[in-house]
Amino acid sequence: MNYPNKSKIEKTTFINYAHRGMTLESDINSSNKYYLDNDIAVIYKKPTPIKVVKVNYNNRINTKIVEAYYEVPSTTDYNGIYKGKYIDFEAKETKSKTAFNLNNIHKHQIVHLEKVLKHGGISFLIIRFTTINKTFLLFTEDFSNYIKDNDRKSIPLSYIEEKGYLLKDSYNPIIDYIKIIDNYIGDKNEKKI
Amino acid sequence: MNYPNKSKIEKTTFINYAHRGMTLESDINSSNKYYLDNDIAVIYKKPTPIKVVKVNYNNRINTKIVEAYYEVPSTTDYNGIYKGKYIDFEAKETKSKTAFNLNNIHKHQIVHLEKVLKHGGISFLIIRFTTINKTFLLFTEDFSNYIKDNDRKSIPLSYIEEKGYLLKDSYNPIIDYIKIIDNYIGDKNEKKI
Repeated sequence: MNYPNKSKIEKTTFINYAHRGMTLESDINSSNKYYLDNDIAVIYKKPTPIKVVKVNYNNRINTKIVEAYYEVPSTTDYNGIYKGKYIDFEAKETKSKTAFNLNNIHKHQIVHLEKVLKHGGISFLIIRFTTINKTFLLFTEDFSNYIKDNDRKSIPLSYIEEKGYLLKDSYNPIIDYIKIIDNYIGDKNEKKI
Repeated sequence: MNYPNKSKIEKTTFINYAHRGMTLESDINSSNKYYLDNDIAVIYKKPTPIKVVKVNYNNRINTKIVEAYYEVPSTTDYNGIYKGKYIDFEAKETKSKTAFNLNNIHKHQIVHLEKVLKHGGISFLIIRFTTINKTFLLFTEDFSNYIKDNDRKSIPLSYIEEKGYLLKDSYNPIIDYIKIIDNYIGDKNEKKI
């Protein structure tokens, strides 16, 4: 399925990194760098999975990949460690003003987030509604509950506003999601007592 | 530095996946699949980081990457969760019969493993001596101690045999490194009591 149809006209595109500065991905990467530099948490974005089919060797350093295809990720985009806890999340943007469409996330990614939770980790989604410029953190517990209880193919913004946590933009870190995790850990410890 | 020198003759090579079955990587991937399928642990290999320079679009599904280069990984190859603990490790093969050369691992990967340990995670190396067909797990604590106390550029096999844990081949999982982690967690809990 990933092999291009040669009969179609191919359009060659150079990747432009200049506009990356305003995406959710770059905001999260920048926040993760802040956490890392300040020794708060060690959380990284995983590389995009790419299937390499053909390479040209000049020498060991200059290996050029000349045919490759994007693959569907097995898991989520981000994981790492905070206060000894395993952290795992996926970040998604949507243009919708009213709901997060579940087509935006692969089923096996939801299964992965649920597995992490089951094994004692902390997992969640970060969803940015780009049109209304609001970003939320929604824990897997709340996300899964909605999916189980409802047949709808999207999660309404109202539910995310009720159960999720608004992540306000700030200077550094741009998205301080660790603050939400801190409360979450505190709440869990309280329940144990 | 990654741009190929066009004046040199380029050799095109198709990637052969057939021989992968005998590498340390495939043994670990197979073991991780066993842990996942049996709901024991959720540990994955991260994708190899690749910098994409040029792509051909036919349509959304058939994007073909036509120019890309391998990048140096920021972290380690494997991470995940076991019994609520964050697990992080790097796996390396060496042909040497006597020592593990530190050139085999990037300095920032060692720093990463030490950071994970500092933040309460479990981190280690899996080293296979292919010539003598022995595979060891060496925790970051022991690895770091050796590096701090010694100026040598390699860790002798004798040290790894003394401080590390031999991972014997078995059927399924092929490399049962979780068994070692289990003892490690048990030891740590005992020390706390």
